[in-house]
Amino acid sequence: MNKAVVLLSGGLDSATTLACAVKDSYDCYALSFRYGQRHAAELEAAKRIAKCIGVVEHRIFPIDLGALGGSALTDTAIAIPEEPVTGIPVTYVPARNTIFLSIALGWAEVIGAREIYIGVNAIDYSGYPDCRAEFIRAFESMANLGTKAGVEGERFRIHTPLIALGKAQIIKKGIVLGVDYSITVSCYAADEAGRACGKCDACRLRVKGFSEAGIEDPTQYQTNA
Amino acid sequence: MNKAVVLLSGGLDSATTLACAVKDSYDCYALSFRYGQRHAAELEAAKRIAKCIGVVEHRIFPIDLGALGGSALTDTAIAIPEEPVTGIPVTYVPARNTIFLSIALGWAEVIGAREIYIGVNAIDYSGYPDCRAEFIRAFESMANLGTKAGVEGERFRIHTPLIALGKAQIIKKGIVLGVDYSITVSCYAADEAGRACGKCDACRLRVKGFSEAGIEDPTQYQTNA
Repeated sequence: MNKAVVLLSGGLDSATTLACAVKDSYDCYALSFRYGQRHAAELEAAKRIAKCIGVVEHRIFPIDLGALGGSALTDTAIAIPEEPVTGIPVTYVPARNTIFLSIALGWAEVIGAREIYIGVNAIDYSGYPDCRAEFIRAFESMANLGTKAGVEGERFRIHTPLIALGKAQIIKKGIVLGVDYSITVSCYAADEAGRACGKCDACRLRVKGFSEAGIEDPTQYQTNA
Repeated sequence: MNKAVVLLSGGLDSATTLACAVKDSYDCYALSFRYGQRHAAELEAAKRIAKCIGVVEHRIFPIDLGALGGSALTDTAIAIPEEPVTGIPVTYVPARNTIFLSIALGWAEVIGAREIYIGVNAIDYSGYPDCRAEFIRAFESMANLGTKAGVEGERFRIHTPLIALGKAQIIKKGIVLGVDYSITVSCYAADEAGRACGKCDACRLRVKGFSEAGIEDPTQYQTNA
């Protein structure tokens, strides 16, 4: 049993996470979601990353979280903030990581994988409740109670190799693992070509991360950014 | 805060669960899934039940679990058993209740509901790991760690009014609450008109339940059943 399902959004964190799973010697099954995100350019990035880093299969699963509403990431009526915010930001998508991990769990059970990788990180995304270690541990316990494999004595593990790292540390780790960050898209408001806005929360964190890591930022920005 | 999200499959159990939530004085938001099930007649039943019992809104959320495979309920290549089985049956859909509850949780958070009802029952479905109380409690803990509302000190509760009841007890409870079981569909292999096969596990349990409850079975069966 040497398989891992890796959640792959197309951003910097998930690309690094996939590289970690490959380094851990798992046969990787990448899972992305077309969930109604306005930044669908990240799915093109996910395809490039899956191909570049190397996976057994890359699946893009459609699930219309936009139909549920409640987030700036899926509802164009809610503006993406261009200034730092305190507390839980409007870009929080209700129960998103719970839903994504649940589907990853279902796929993992079907293909016989027991390892699930997710690129959450509690430093930069402290405002997102579903990026914290307490949540991940609770999900893992639940997964082992709610599945056939778990009940039959096998054990699902949720791996979060980035959870305690800041953006600069993540970038340095990825560079060592050979990740090509020029093909990743982090921006919440990327244009169709995948060029970043340079203003949203995700862009600000990324710019700061490359700067602090002392590594040249390969991101393509929109000309008006 | 007087809202509840109720998972409504269209079968006998979920209809009874909805009636329980209404009796508990919640404004009910019913949630069904078009998940690739071969028994899609249950969705028509869900619509009838939602209308008959009365809900604020009934939403049918599409999610193609069939694309993940691994179950007789979503894969026509796997036969529905016509004899009782021991252990976890092939009709188990990997992580289904985890996925359904996760989406219910997301919707609940968006609409401001903190109560979620699900008609699982550990007596008749002892073979399904995600129908057990341990799983439900673990999901509830996880939900309160992974959501904005949970972190901000509110509390999601997962209600399972049927969890300790056998089929006959569920039917008796529903009759008291005024549930019209003639409009529900339990069968895994119902035809387009919603008529039951009379042979699958779900049919056998249902027939036995009406018999033990001493209540006439209003189910429409296929003529060759």
